[in-house]
Amino acid sequence: MSAQPYEESHLYKLRHSAAHLMAQAVTELHPGSKLAIGPPIENGFYYDIDFPEPITDRDLGKIEQRMKELAKLDMPIEMVEAKDREDAKRIILEDCTLGQGEETALYKLELLDAIPDGDPITFYDQKGTDKQGNERRFIDLCRGPHIESTKPLRYVKLMSIAGAYWRGDVKNKQLTRLYGTAFETKEELKEYLHFLEEAKKRDHRLLGRELNLFMFSAKVGPGLPLWLPKGAVLRETICDFLKDEQVRRGYDPVVTPNIASKRLYEASGHIQNYADKMFPFMEDAEKETFILKPMNCPFHIEMYASTLRSYRDLPVRYAEFGTVYRYEQSGELAGMLRVRGFTQDDAHLFVRPDQLLEEFKGVVELTMAVLKKLGLKEYRVRVGTRDPSSDKYVGHDDNWELSEKAICQACEELGIDYEISVGDAAFYGPKLDLVIKDALRREWQMGTVQVDYNLPERFELEYIGEDSKPHRPILIHRAPFGSLERMIGLLTEEYAGAFPFWMSPVQVGILPIADRHVGYAMAIAEVLQGYPSLVEPEGEQTEFKAPEGSIDETIRVSIDASRETLGKKIRNNTKQKLPYLLIVGDRDAEEGTVGVRARGEDGDLGSMKLAEFIKMIKKEL
Amino acid sequence: MSAQPYEESHLYKLRHSAAHLMAQAVTELHPGSKLAIGPPIENGFYYDIDFPEPITDRDLGKIEQRMKELAKLDMPIEMVEAKDREDAKRIILEDCTLGQGEETALYKLELLDAIPDGDPITFYDQKGTDKQGNERRFIDLCRGPHIESTKPLRYVKLMSIAGAYWRGDVKNKQLTRLYGTAFETKEELKEYLHFLEEAKKRDHRLLGRELNLFMFSAKVGPGLPLWLPKGAVLRETICDFLKDEQVRRGYDPVVTPNIASKRLYEASGHIQNYADKMFPFMEDAEKETFILKPMNCPFHIEMYASTLRSYRDLPVRYAEFGTVYRYEQSGELAGMLRVRGFTQDDAHLFVRPDQLLEEFKGVVELTMAVLKKLGLKEYRVRVGTRDPSSDKYVGHDDNWELSEKAICQACEELGIDYEISVGDAAFYGPKLDLVIKDALRREWQMGTVQVDYNLPERFELEYIGEDSKPHRPILIHRAPFGSLERMIGLLTEEYAGAFPFWMSPVQVGILPIADRHVGYAMAIAEVLQGYPSLVEPEGEQTEFKAPEGSIDETIRVSIDASRETLGKKIRNNTKQKLPYLLIVGDRDAEEGTVGVRARGEDGDLGSMKLAEFIKMIKKEL
Repeated sequence: MSAQPYEESHLYKLRHSAAHLMAQAVTELHPGSKLAIGPPIENGFYYDIDFPEPITDRDLGKIEQRMKELAKLDMPIEMVEAKDREDAKRIILEDCTLGQGEETALYKLELLDAIPDGDPITFYDQKGTDKQGNERRFIDLCRGPHIESTKPLRYVKLMSIAGAYWRGDVKNKQLTRLYGTAFETKEELKEYLHFLEEAKKRDHRLLGRELNLFMFSAKVGPGLPLWLPKGAVLRETICDFLKDEQVRRGYDPVVTPNIASKRLYEASGHIQNYADKMFPFMEDAEKETFILKPMNCPFHIEMYASTLRSYRDLPVRYAEFGTVYRYEQSGELAGMLRVRGFTQDDAHLFVRPDQLLEEFKGVVELTMAVLKKLGLKEYRVRVGTRDPSSDKYVGHDDNWELSEKAICQACEELGIDYEISVGDAAFYGPKLDLVIKDALRREWQMGTVQVDYNLPERFELEYIGEDSKPHRPILIHRAPFGSLERMIGLLTEEYAGAFPFWMSPVQVGILPIADRHVGYAMAIAEVLQGYPSLVEPEGEQTEFKAPEGSIDETIRVSIDASRETLGKKIRNNTKQKLPYLLIVGDRDAEEGTVGVRARGEDGDLGSMKLAEFIKMIKKEL
Repeated sequence: MSAQPYEESHLYKLRHSAAHLMAQAVTELHPGSKLAIGPPIENGFYYDIDFPEPITDRDLGKIEQRMKELAKLDMPIEMVEAKDREDAKRIILEDCTLGQGEETALYKLELLDAIPDGDPITFYDQKGTDKQGNERRFIDLCRGPHIESTKPLRYVKLMSIAGAYWRGDVKNKQLTRLYGTAFETKEELKEYLHFLEEAKKRDHRLLGRELNLFMFSAKVGPGLPLWLPKGAVLRETICDFLKDEQVRRGYDPVVTPNIASKRLYEASGHIQNYADKMFPFMEDAEKETFILKPMNCPFHIEMYASTLRSYRDLPVRYAEFGTVYRYEQSGELAGMLRVRGFTQDDAHLFVRPDQLLEEFKGVVELTMAVLKKLGLKEYRVRVGTRDPSSDKYVGHDDNWELSEKAICQACEELGIDYEISVGDAAFYGPKLDLVIKDALRREWQMGTVQVDYNLPERFELEYIGEDSKPHRPILIHRAPFGSLERMIGLLTEEYAGAFPFWMSPVQVGILPIADRHVGYAMAIAEVLQGYPSLVEPEGEQTEFKAPEGSIDETIRVSIDASRETLGKKIRNNTKQKLPYLLIVGDRDAEEGTVGVRARGEDGDLGSMKLAEFIKMIKKEL
């Protein structure tokens, strides 16, 4: 297939025609409706309509039904050009209104007025005769283009009802927007609806709530997530894994405040260039002004600059899970994907020019190792380079050459495919972006690795070279996943909440069949956790034999000591998507066994000795 | 000894007399000095003096010398009462000036003016004759009391020179303040000076810099510590330990933002009662106002309130290492002990009344377990109860009785001595404070455990009881150590930077004798760390035999691959107070041994097989 733009495709025209067909159905079912505009959009089409009475999802179904009936009439769709503005007005008032009253032409007349003089004024007219011999017709002021007849418009689905202001202006009347989609084949429509269903099931906002991962609070404010216990454990587990990987690669952890004096961000240039993304300043007229930090870099730079560095001290690699705040528009916030407060998987590497290649390679290698462990197999790597024709860049040409070459070479040596995006570099250096493809083949722009010649210059950073003279280090900014919030949003959707064993907030749920089995459940929990619990859940305790088996790592367990029936307990815990459920009753307590249910297709694995279960899960660690 | 107040003690009088003696020495050595005031203070005395020329530490030594000489003259100190204000003025101008000019009486005349009419006006006069037969005399306007003669003033030490404004007003002239101390015996003075020396060696601000634990930056602003790599590791190690202890005790970790809408703190009442400790608000006139969080509680409350709770769900225990910000006066900031941004070891427990005792006991038990692990053996526990005569308290009497009893009973059941401080409760509930005594027997007020009936009421928190009716939970605030900053400040001073093995940021320093031993050093590091390093330090690499021995836990190591001599390397690393240094050379590389030097008195432990060393340190984990 050629890379034809969507806007020029047959599908685009088809969806445009589907919008007209929907409008026809509406005029038939809801006479007196005033039509506004009805364009095709990315995944379908919409029409903004001023209905004489409010409509519901039930009406939506009826409209869809009517559309399918109309499609079958195979009405030809013909373009009609008005002779002049007067003629167009006549068509609108006489034909388009379909005898439902001139007031229904309100918005179309406004649209007509907006057409510049001299431009052609066109209408699309579709008409046919139904089985009962009645004429069915619809004509609409429209630039087109459209498909030739209504027959291909059978694979349509009306999706939702929303509000929309006429001309997008809140001062105008609010209209009703009907969203729909249409495809060329039944299979494509089915596939798309399946995709939507899957995407809905995986929506991290819904799963976040259902699995008790995180929440938002009106009192705390929009875009500021609160991590509930299970989310906090998930976050900590991923952080711990990242920390270990970083320590192995010679990163040094640091911790810096969430605020700084305005002076710091004046020195970095952020105030001058980034103020619109910053929260309002904390100003004390008599004292100093503080700023909620939007970026960690200036803090790490202050640390680097706090002592004299020798060429032998480099590279210096400061890593911080740094929580930063950016004043995004509230309308742009979206679950964990676009928030106002988030924790970056941040690091800054201060390197000598001769270390740039190796260090960049190290960063990319680490990123790949992390992706692998997270189970994210598909991704794109994009290298943003200078636009050779522009002069907006700071730093010497040979430095740019060095760093662009280093980034590409690092990818090549690690066998990573990359695409080059010329002109996509920042003014202060080239970069590498990571785009991950999830299980539904949607792309997620993650974080970035960025070479920076600017900040070392602004802060006059130095190291003493082998020649005993001061040299300027190069700074690498590195947050390959952007933020924990985004990463966990992605992982939640990727796994539809059924996280791999190692990162599951609760790895094993223990379900005592009755209260008298709680004691045995606790004994199992102790073995799996690797330590005796110091808290006793309520419920009848029985004598129990300590089960055999032991484990090195701590397994995160929960005990469901609720007074529900076993069936209800299993349903509740299955919804929580725990990797394993252990069901324990009288016989298990006697024999030291557990009834194992694995998540997903594996299902019921039957009864086994606890030691056997431990052996099994050890493989997943 | 009776608990006589210091202000009524002999020592207090002695120090007052020492201040006069210092002034006498000054008038002899620096004629023309204008004396202002010279009171005794907590650990000694001072005198504010307007010197005719700036003085130095060298002068301080000479003044001290002169004081000792004068003390030996055993001059009697006599009180003289002026007949009236005129008489007093005459004494000041004629006697006190010692013939050095009337202008030297400037401040004394002002002091005289400030004495209310009718009050007695007294002077203290000391005079004697030295070996040369010269009269030596000093007379000063003073309320007294003083000791009887100068002889006991031999055990004096002048400490430091500082600036101080006349009458403490910055608009007045800046005078020179000389600080000194005096004791009744030589031994007491010696002991005190030893204490000061020890305290100085342990000063966490100095050690923090020397051991690269943390720093401050003028650009970031006062009271906002930046944790350098070693400090960050120390902090993380202590956090991890605390987290584990909390998980074992059924705490759930949570993570909340550092800011919230003003609405949240209006709901909590903090805006109304705590605004002076908050940073300036982030105000957006068109949108909403955000506040940098001074406390975590309202966030945890929002989480509790986000879902319906049953009596079986309680207690809910939310733990967070929550970073909060308080707008302390910059003059009040002190190293890590008083900062503007700090991370609380915070938790909030939502409990039923019938759970209060057990939960409070759990909190105290956890606190004691943590103290033990941290090696802090001496502490005081203070229970703050209601003042029965006041009516400022919220909540029902029976609740107060219940909780005060629960706190005391919890301590008693755990065998902990406590003192009751009547009237020391907050208006919303009784509390328990922890005061730790360090190695120098200084007391550190740490955090608090607080019962709260107020916030559950304000936020209308509920749980459904066994009776199917809504009930109000009790809230326990709990930050037993107050903050990580304060805790690590204390630990740094307690251990003078020589942290116990388990918490040392670097536990083992490996010192290759020459570059050719770096390879062997790395092999040892790999065994101790439990994983191969992915970063290669520079230096010549040699073939080496993999040393035997293995270890379960990760040991934090450093390799000193600098080009210094072995002697210099040992000195540098010893200053860093690492628990163990391993010195490795040719023979070690061949035989798989290490030369072990333990920190402190143990010193050189000689050469041993690596496996033997591992066996040794395993005991310390």
